[in-house]
Amino acid sequence: MVTGSWGKKAANEAKKFCQVNIAADASDRNFTYIPAESSWQRSDNAAYLHYTPNETIAGVEFHFVPGGDVPLVADMSSTILSRPIDVSRFGVIYAGAQKNIGPAGLTLVIVRDDLISQDLPESVPSMFRYATHAENGSMYNTPPTYGWYLAGLVFQWLKELGGLEGMAEINARKAKLLYDAIDNSSFYENPVEVRNRSWMNVPFTLVNPELDAEFLAEAEKAGLSTLKGHRSVGGIRTSIYNAMEPSDVARFVEFAESFARGNR
Amino acid sequence: MVTGSWGKKAANEAKKFCQVNIAADASDRNFTYIPAESSWQRSDNAAYLHYTPNETIAGVEFHFVPGGDVPLVADMSSTILSRPIDVSRFGVIYAGAQKNIGPAGLTLVIVRDDLISQDLPESVPSMFRYATHAENGSMYNTPPTYGWYLAGLVFQWLKELGGLEGMAEINARKAKLLYDAIDNSSFYENPVEVRNRSWMNVPFTLVNPELDAEFLAEAEKAGLSTLKGHRSVGGIRTSIYNAMEPSDVARFVEFAESFARGNR
Repeated sequence: MVTGSWGKKAANEAKKFCQVNIAADASDRNFTYIPAESSWQRSDNAAYLHYTPNETIAGVEFHFVPGGDVPLVADMSSTILSRPIDVSRFGVIYAGAQKNIGPAGLTLVIVRDDLISQDLPESVPSMFRYATHAENGSMYNTPPTYGWYLAGLVFQWLKELGGLEGMAEINARKAKLLYDAIDNSSFYENPVEVRNRSWMNVPFTLVNPELDAEFLAEAEKAGLSTLKGHRSVGGIRTSIYNAMEPSDVARFVEFAESFARGNR
Repeated sequence: MVTGSWGKKAANEAKKFCQVNIAADASDRNFTYIPAESSWQRSDNAAYLHYTPNETIAGVEFHFVPGGDVPLVADMSSTILSRPIDVSRFGVIYAGAQKNIGPAGLTLVIVRDDLISQDLPESVPSMFRYATHAENGSMYNTPPTYGWYLAGLVFQWLKELGGLEGMAEINARKAKLLYDAIDNSSFYENPVEVRNRSWMNVPFTLVNPELDAEFLAEAEKAGLSTLKGHRSVGGIRTSIYNAMEPSDVARFVEFAESFARGNR
């Protein structure tokens, strides 16, 4: 499934090792939607279906788990720990830590037992074999110990907030605050289909893009930084991962509304 | 060059991608020496020579850089930053950070320009191509930012200590303190050839191995921990990387001498 730049990278990398069939590609509308499941062109004999539940650049998200019998492989970097996930429905879940888990430099992988010891070509490096890590208790290499430690603190913090159920409620509230502000304004726009909008990355544009630079400069002055949208979509991108508090989002919304009033 | 378990792992991994010729193998004497350079069986048409300047388990070290015209590829994990290195003599230097650079989870690589863009088989993953990292300013993946930051602090600290020249003097002093104590004792033994002894890892055995457990227990009580030798060599292993102060080594020597006196 190619629903953004991470899915595209994953498909290209997979081509080194297997025949890739693109079941759906949302690049026709600049990755602002998830193609309807009924339209996917899935192979009859697929070994797995890979998808990216949340694409960070366009801010598009699967709010459902794809059906079918083949193992699901999901890049959950921007989804994991944001809400409860039914792990039993996946063959492989992988996630870079740097969004919701802990510091950059750690990757978390959950692999179904029967998929660990696939018969792989000899040329696959030892470090890229899940069996290597499973057989060595995730310590085939010296693990990033400090990242592990910090991730443990994050897990404790999540439990104190009510676990993933609690986090889901907080994240839904944060996203609603932001999308409501955008949708209730004639000054801002978000191009993503409402049912596919991300809880984690909320990109939007100013109806008058000539004000983008001033928006970013004023935001910076107000202590709101790294808000520039990716060059492929322009405008503004807010990321509201777990570490971002509802009050931070409220402060941003207040700034954006005030900026809109001042530039009407 | 197989002069220890890291060299052996490197040779096995290389077999996935090329024909490996073992130029020398020191397993015949449990990796306690570096075979004389004149005895190495080098291929005429080798693409490179790989060696491990310091092998951590047996505590054996190259105190010279191999000659010849082919690019040298060195696993410097336990050597880098311990003393000055003439980088110009190497094709590739790689080093895990967790010994002398910074926290685990970071790997430093120095590659000669003309070796970066080798013609590699299609199956080599993007992350395992030096060109990928060179073309993306080491940020193809999200880098382990906190590890980078801490490494920067370590580099500043090294400069304050007199740079690598200063560190070399300190490390030579630390190693001499330990080896002198071992060699001047009939209670302890180090099996490594004197000219190949490591500055960083000093393994030794008690002449009476029945006292090993008591040594380790008493050491632990004295605040000296993780001293158990690797199971393949037994006894005790001290690691005296840059972070270990000369006064720490002196404290250990004092403990070891006192233990010997008490168990004569």
